[in-house]
Parts: sequence; C-alpha cells; structure tokens
Amino acid sequence: MDELTDRSAPRRGRPPDPTLRPRLLATARRLLAEGGLQALNADRLARAAGAGKSAVHRRWPDLLDLAADVVRTADLAKPAQGAAATVDDLAALAAGWSAPLSLPERAAASLVGAHRHHAALAEAFVGAVDTPLTELATTLLARRGPVDPARASRVAQVLRALLVGRLVRGPVSPAHADGLAREVLDPLLGRPGG
Amino acid sequence: MDELTDRSAPRRGRPPDPTLRPRLLATARRLLAEGGLQALNADRLARAAGAGKSAVHRRWPDLLDLAADVVRTADLAKPAQGAAATVDDLAALAAGWSAPLSLPERAAASLVGAHRHHAALAEAFVGAVDTPLTELATTLLARRGPVDPARASRVAQVLRALLVGRLVRGPVSPAHADGLAREVLDPLLGRPGG
Repeated sequence: MDELTDRSAPRRGRPPDPTLRPRLLATARRLLAEGGLQALNADRLARAAGAGKSAVHRRWPDLLDLAADVVRTADLAKPAQGAAATVDDLAALAAGWSAPLSLPERAAASLVGAHRHHAALAEAFVGAVDTPLTELATTLLARRGPVDPARASRVAQVLRALLVGRLVRGPVSPAHADGLAREVLDPLLGRPGG
Repeated sequence: MDELTDRSAPRRGRPPDPTLRPRLLATARRLLAEGGLQALNADRLARAAGAGKSAVHRRWPDLLDLAADVVRTADLAKPAQGAAATVDDLAALAAGWSAPLSLPERAAASLVGAHRHHAALAEAFVGAVDTPLTELATTLLARRGPVDPARASRVAQVLRALLVGRLVRGPVSPAHADGLAREVLDPLLGRPGG
C-alpha cells in the first residue's frame, strides 16, 4: 500500500534501508542543536544524512513531526528516574541539574518556544516532561506519607520549572543544585510521615 | 549619512513617519504571538503594517534584532516590581503567576528556545528576565536580613524558573501560585533576621 501511495518508495524487491530512519533522526538532532528550528529543512537534512529528500518526506511529511520525535527521544526527564526520600537522596537527584546539556537535550531546548504553535511538538513535551515529572512528584511524596494531590501538583510544577530552566538557561553549579534540593525540594515535600 | 547608505530612505524634505516604528513593532509582536518565529518575515510584516518592506529593513536589517526588541518591550519581569517581606506579600507577588499571558508575553514566549542561536535575543532575555529578577532576589532577602550571595543567586534562579515556566507552560491556578509563595519562596528566603 505504501508503494501505491508513495511515488518515492524503494523499488519493488529492494527492502528499505533500516538504518535510514535513525540516521535521519540523528542528523535532525544535530542540525537543531547547532542552529535551531530555522536550520531544519528537508534539503539540508537529506544532504547531511546522505539520503534523498523523498526519504525525509516519506517518513515525516511535516518536519515538525520530526522535531517532535527529537523531543520524544531526548530523555529529558532522565535525572528524574530515582525515587528519593531523604534530603541526601534529593541532593543526588538534583546533581543532574548541574550536568552540561547533551546534544539531544540541546536539540530539544531549541524547540521550547516553538511548541506553542505546533500541537505535535506540544504533545511531545507533555509526554517527555510533564508526565514523568508528575509521576516522580507522586513517588517522592508517597515516600514521606499520604499524597495530597494539590501538593503533588505543586511539586511537579517546581520540578518542571527547574528542568525547563536548565534546558533554557543551561545547567546550574553543583553547589546551586545542592542548595535547590535542600532549600526548595526538601521543604516543599514536607516532613516524613507529616 | 543615512540617506547616502540607505537607498530606501524617505525623500529629502519628507520627514520619516514617527508612528511607523511602533506600528511595525506592534505588528511583529502580533505575528510572533500568533505564529511564532516562523511567521515573522519582512514581506508579511510590511503588508500587515501597511508599510513598505524597505521600512522594515531600514530599521531592522536582521529580523532577529526586531525579535529582540519584542522581548525587551514585553515587560516580562512585571510581577517582580514589588518588594515583599511577609509571606502575604510574597503571595501577592506570586498572584501574578496565575495571570493569563498578555500578547507581548506570548510573543516573547515563542522566542524562548530560539535565543540559544541568536546573541541579540539571548541578551534581550538576560536584560528582561535575569537582571530584574536578580535585583528582586536581593531586595527580598535584604528585607529579612544580611544578604548571602549564594542564597540570592538560588532565589533568583527559582524566580527565573517560575517565570520562564509560566511563559512556556502558561499560568498556574491562583491556589497553586499561593502555594508556591508559601511553600517554596518563603522557606527559600529564610526567617526574618535569620
């Protein structure tokens, strides 16, 4: 069916190259990290990946969908995977905020404002940031006692603000991250059992 | 001298229209708020403002400089002008975080990621967000006692994260803003005199 609707499909009998999609995605990531959304166009992408333009259009008829895939695969909520309870655990969690941005993170960072105007991008950010951090907030609170939903939503919002702040303004110093864990996160979570 | 270097300058003897610059700026703000950076081009801007394209190029040879002017005039750190001391003052300050984004704020919000790749834009954000919030952090701490620079920088970073979070993800609920003032800002500032 693809071959009927897509004039640029590979010739019958020649299987599509399975390395092409990840290669195009990696190239898009690099173009975005280096030059932002304005640097992402099908011509440049195809040339840089050593592929045809039709290979791009076939996979992502709208390049913003490709940008959304870059967000989804940037592992943005990575420092959120622990489930800390003590203030030292929180400091270990916060240490991730002082790490330099990886290339996938820089690519996603350059898309932060643009998601206002593209539903697919906005949805990708919700899935990559909001959902995991909402889960993390609930997990952290549950370690200390019964979970109040209003407090969970506040904790999630602060975690999100700090994560987006790192994307947008770069990492903080290790001392800074430690201070944020002890002076912001810990009081916000409340006392164990309280 | 402008007339020598600028072929599109108004004819000798006809004064330039003083309303044109603010009109172009207001139009750029609207285009950015509605469609993001990709909607800002000289053709569309000139047409929408009822001006010639040369009027745009003469004032902003690079449209990113126009975008930087949009950031500078968006009054982003507006809720930061008070100088609160008690927790109720902080709640009043935080109430601004639940206000819907104005059109100038929405225009600036769509430029958040793009500033990574444009020095003029990045500088405009520093002037419109970092500088006033660093001053606010110092003012707030000074109301409670001697100012520790490390703590001031942490307070400024949290204020910045919350402000950028509002730009990027929209306003929080009033209850949320109140909770952030009481559970995040107040403990972060420390006790009066302490």
